[in-house]
Amino acid sequence: MALKAVSIWGCYKPPPQLGVGVSNSHSTLIGNLRYDYDKCRKWECCCLGVLAQRATTAVEDEGPSVPPLVDSSGAADGVHQNESKGFHKDLNLLPKPLTAIDISSYPRDGSKVRVAYQGLPGAYSEDAALKAYPKCETVPCDNFEAAFKAVELWLVNKTVLPIENSVGGSVHRNYDLLLRHRLHIVGEVQLRVNHCLLGLPGVRKEELRAVAFAQCETTLSDLGAVKIAARDTAAAAQTVASNCARDTGAIASSRAAEVYGLDILAERIQDDDENITRFLVLAREPIIPGTDRPHKTSIVFSLEEGPGVLFKALAVFAMRDINLSKIESRPLKQRSLRVVDHLNEGSATYFDYLFYIDIEASMAEPRAQYALGQLQEFARFLRVLGCYPMDTVL
Amino acid sequence: MALKAVSIWGCYKPPPQLGVGVSNSHSTLIGNLRYDYDKCRKWECCCLGVLAQRATTAVEDEGPSVPPLVDSSGAADGVHQNESKGFHKDLNLLPKPLTAIDISSYPRDGSKVRVAYQGLPGAYSEDAALKAYPKCETVPCDNFEAAFKAVELWLVNKTVLPIENSVGGSVHRNYDLLLRHRLHIVGEVQLRVNHCLLGLPGVRKEELRAVAFAQCETTLSDLGAVKIAARDTAAAAQTVASNCARDTGAIASSRAAEVYGLDILAERIQDDDENITRFLVLAREPIIPGTDRPHKTSIVFSLEEGPGVLFKALAVFAMRDINLSKIESRPLKQRSLRVVDHLNEGSATYFDYLFYIDIEASMAEPRAQYALGQLQEFARFLRVLGCYPMDTVL
Repeated sequence: MALKAVSIWGCYKPPPQLGVGVSNSHSTLIGNLRYDYDKCRKWECCCLGVLAQRATTAVEDEGPSVPPLVDSSGAADGVHQNESKGFHKDLNLLPKPLTAIDISSYPRDGSKVRVAYQGLPGAYSEDAALKAYPKCETVPCDNFEAAFKAVELWLVNKTVLPIENSVGGSVHRNYDLLLRHRLHIVGEVQLRVNHCLLGLPGVRKEELRAVAFAQCETTLSDLGAVKIAARDTAAAAQTVASNCARDTGAIASSRAAEVYGLDILAERIQDDDENITRFLVLAREPIIPGTDRPHKTSIVFSLEEGPGVLFKALAVFAMRDINLSKIESRPLKQRSLRVVDHLNEGSATYFDYLFYIDIEASMAEPRAQYALGQLQEFARFLRVLGCYPMDTVL
Repeated sequence: MALKAVSIWGCYKPPPQLGVGVSNSHSTLIGNLRYDYDKCRKWECCCLGVLAQRATTAVEDEGPSVPPLVDSSGAADGVHQNESKGFHKDLNLLPKPLTAIDISSYPRDGSKVRVAYQGLPGAYSEDAALKAYPKCETVPCDNFEAAFKAVELWLVNKTVLPIENSVGGSVHRNYDLLLRHRLHIVGEVQLRVNHCLLGLPGVRKEELRAVAFAQCETTLSDLGAVKIAARDTAAAAQTVASNCARDTGAIASSRAAEVYGLDILAERIQDDDENITRFLVLAREPIIPGTDRPHKTSIVFSLEEGPGVLFKALAVFAMRDINLSKIESRPLKQRSLRVVDHLNEGSATYFDYLFYIDIEASMAEPRAQYALGQLQEFARFLRVLGCYPMDTVL
């Protein structure tokens, strides 16, 4: 219950400097409240959070536009410069994934937005980063924790996190990361997975005797080649390139072909025609939600046990004609989950169930604020993970 | 809309022989209907389905008990006999995974229940099969399609299918398989994933220079060993055993150690303490649901687009105090999904969203039948995937 008062996005007791922002610069939004302060502290608390962020948060980019400058301390060594599109024959020139150990000494370049991703150069996550920020520098990380840390320690501006796949489903582990860290969702990216068969330059498909691949879901039986397991698609491409094996192909993205100097021998070889991964773009600070274009708001909450409680929770949205674009229950059965709020370093909290919901509304809309205010009246735990423009381009 | 009338479990026009079963042997359940036939055809249709199955379905086992005999045509070559627990030094003695090609010539043994699973011997899916049916013969399959086909072609009695994991989430692909095939859920198995570090007999942990593993989620950094990607955990264990490599370990289950004659050098090395996978047990025929112990009913449905429609759908359960143990939306955005019903071979159907819901009620309870009858009034598509006893033992 202790988390109830602090878990909602911005819904914590505002420190003195935030109160200033509320009282002097955003009186128009305050004027829309039309609510008695004492009667709807929760709702206002939610609203104050938004206002407080307006007062204190430097607005970064809300979409794939040229990002603002950030601090400049060091060169861009080891960081992938997206402009250099030549084939990499010398694989040592590619950036090495960040690990937790070397994060502390990672160089920074102040000239462009830097986006961390999990995986090797050529991973689909890198594609997602480049779809969100076409001119960004992509920074490979050894694992997701390292990508989150890289943002928290100001080494990069954002990170992209695969959260669900049209055939694989939602990744609970990555939702847990969102709860364990203080990053905010500032965007989403829908990316079509397009597996290609790659080989060394000049090699024909028929010459392949083995194929390195990451997931067993891709049926390779018709190729008649030996399967070699790889950690991920980019690693598969890297294996072929580094071994210079003419008889070995790799299943990876077209970008991996570019990065590792390989030829594309076949395209769209995945089992599922429509294999789409949804990534979240995460940053240290939330964006200021607008109402100029469709926004989504992602929330996580838990409820007391009992029949009909979820129904009650959905009523707060249905009554206000707010559409849901996602709902998912996650059984935890009294397992503990580490959750951080804005005030502490994280504590183990026990939940029976968590619910993940995306609503098709912006936090700038009063109906969304009212709905979440009402939900918080009976939710055991509630956190707004972020409000962000929908990605409608596939 | 054509699917509406036929998609609910058993909710298709009963052929003549089924009508006989309804009229003569189950009048007590009919007596409970208390409904005018013309007014609630949908509901009764649902009920008729249950009765029809009673009349025509041979009851197999509802839980981990000794199964009934089935046809006997051939010896148990290639099938894992669970009693033989000795270490397999000769890996050639282990059963080879079934592929689609050799399914047609697969031998059958009539002495015990046979359960197909995806993977190699020692896979967690095999563990799940043995938890459900301790005395069963487990039959490895090359992929999930082959496991489904093995049941459909009467080569095995059941198959187990991993459907969700506490950290990985639900596997949409496997839900699709349920829709593409006509198998019914007859049970569930909750299995705790317990990754072990395995090595050749006598090897100490310190001697390992490399470790074969299947998922990058397991942090191996503290081992200081080179990581070798493997297709799955059982394949990792098989690699170490077949290469006789003293300096290479594998991350796999304790059962894989037994199967491949390896030593367990460390236990519980997964990142997540509570990593639980839920499997579904599938059979050709549904079981007759009881009310003697807690049952679950799994359904899939789609709705017309619009705010509040899901709310309306949940109302049919909330009004009857039926608890949900799972809810999940799956966006399909007008992509087609191949769906079979009881009458045809499958057709491509377009959905915006599918919803997966598990209700904590048995189809033998009138409230569950009424609820689904009401849901079918406005659902574009509805299928009951199965009704089965809950697995409460972990």
